[in-house]
Amino acid sequence: MALLYEGKAKQLFTTENDDELRLVYKNDATAFNGEKHDVLEGKGKLNNAISALFFEVLEAEGVATHFKAKISETEQIVRPTQMIPLEVVVRNLTAGSLARRLGWAEGKELTEPIVEWYYKDDAIGDPLVNEAHIAALEVVKAEELEEMRMRALHVNKILLKLCQKAGILLVDFKLEFGFAEDGTLILADEVSPDTCRFWDKETGEKMDKDVYRYDLGSLQSGYETILSRIGGVVHG
Amino acid sequence: MALLYEGKAKQLFTTENDDELRLVYKNDATAFNGEKHDVLEGKGKLNNAISALFFEVLEAEGVATHFKAKISETEQIVRPTQMIPLEVVVRNLTAGSLARRLGWAEGKELTEPIVEWYYKDDAIGDPLVNEAHIAALEVVKAEELEEMRMRALHVNKILLKLCQKAGILLVDFKLEFGFAEDGTLILADEVSPDTCRFWDKETGEKMDKDVYRYDLGSLQSGYETILSRIGGVVHG
Repeated sequence: MALLYEGKAKQLFTTENDDELRLVYKNDATAFNGEKHDVLEGKGKLNNAISALFFEVLEAEGVATHFKAKISETEQIVRPTQMIPLEVVVRNLTAGSLARRLGWAEGKELTEPIVEWYYKDDAIGDPLVNEAHIAALEVVKAEELEEMRMRALHVNKILLKLCQKAGILLVDFKLEFGFAEDGTLILADEVSPDTCRFWDKETGEKMDKDVYRYDLGSLQSGYETILSRIGGVVHG
Repeated sequence: MALLYEGKAKQLFTTENDDELRLVYKNDATAFNGEKHDVLEGKGKLNNAISALFFEVLEAEGVATHFKAKISETEQIVRPTQMIPLEVVVRNLTAGSLARRLGWAEGKELTEPIVEWYYKDDAIGDPLVNEAHIAALEVVKAEELEEMRMRALHVNKILLKLCQKAGILLVDFKLEFGFAEDGTLILADEVSPDTCRFWDKETGEKMDKDVYRYDLGSLQSGYETILSRIGGVVHG
């Protein structure tokens, strides 16, 4: 089957069915807009399992997503989606670029979640954009943007509850939306420690891609902890 | 009289009157967050004249400002103002950081003006912020922010009309607001070629601080053209 798209961490293939695509999670880890790159054994398997689990929870809570089924250790079946070239970032605590932007330390709890938009364009480094920039770029209508914002905040509530039970601080996360073939807005891409910041609630230990970004230890070990805490089977 | 504040391009002094301060325009030119710095003879005089003229027009059009009077070649009397640490940038054409952010060439006309907020903090490089960041920073209330946005767009309309008559393209500009002693929101700081991008409508020639930033020629010559075109007297 034809390779439709290859990203930094995933590949997307056609299947025999027009309304299904095969999403393959790779072992590649990248950071700093691709400047850092490694292949980490087992990463694809872990992200596939974690992302599938999160998507199942989100679907059960009424969030429309591209996810249909996990079909192997590293593969999912997803709906064909016309991706919107925006990253929606929801933040509950300061970390990363938000800490730098506000001039604050990491780990400061925010009174209200902060929603940020980033324009997906590697050539210009995925810049932060506001609603007026997005209107000028004509990537999505104002009402669709507002819908994405509301859905991202809804996803935040669901993930916060799940993480709370799992002893995990959901620091922030990135979502990507797109349009399904029937034109409806759906959540796509992945929800995993590659795209979320997860800290241990007790120790503050990082269990996400920052472990790889800043050489803090074994990425896989953190991802295994996340998978196991949210109810997944690590060595299945 | 006591020096209350010294910025990159201006000094602020107390006067005998509690409700009046003396604003002195300096000859200093700075760029790139202070990395580039020069003293350019006559710059203070030009900016004082241009800014006074713009403030007079804005006041006449009903925009509340800190401006009271131009009292000498380099001095104005202004109202004491509790400054809000935000820069409001209004853009009509792409230039500078907006061109880089969108990945577009300079000089592309925008369908709608773009309003941007920058958090004034030299230590972190005056970062772009959105409404949620501003709420977290607690610098201003949401309704005050909206009021600033509306006023900035109103100022844009007034300046566009003035520039149109003067054969000048108003590419973008930066405003700063604050609270007067009676608590009302007023426009403060300056409106000059240090804080606006002005291009010749026919030739596209830059007549603002970009001339200094990018070593494009004589800053004073461009500023003199602006002053003369908007009806000021260059060698008074």
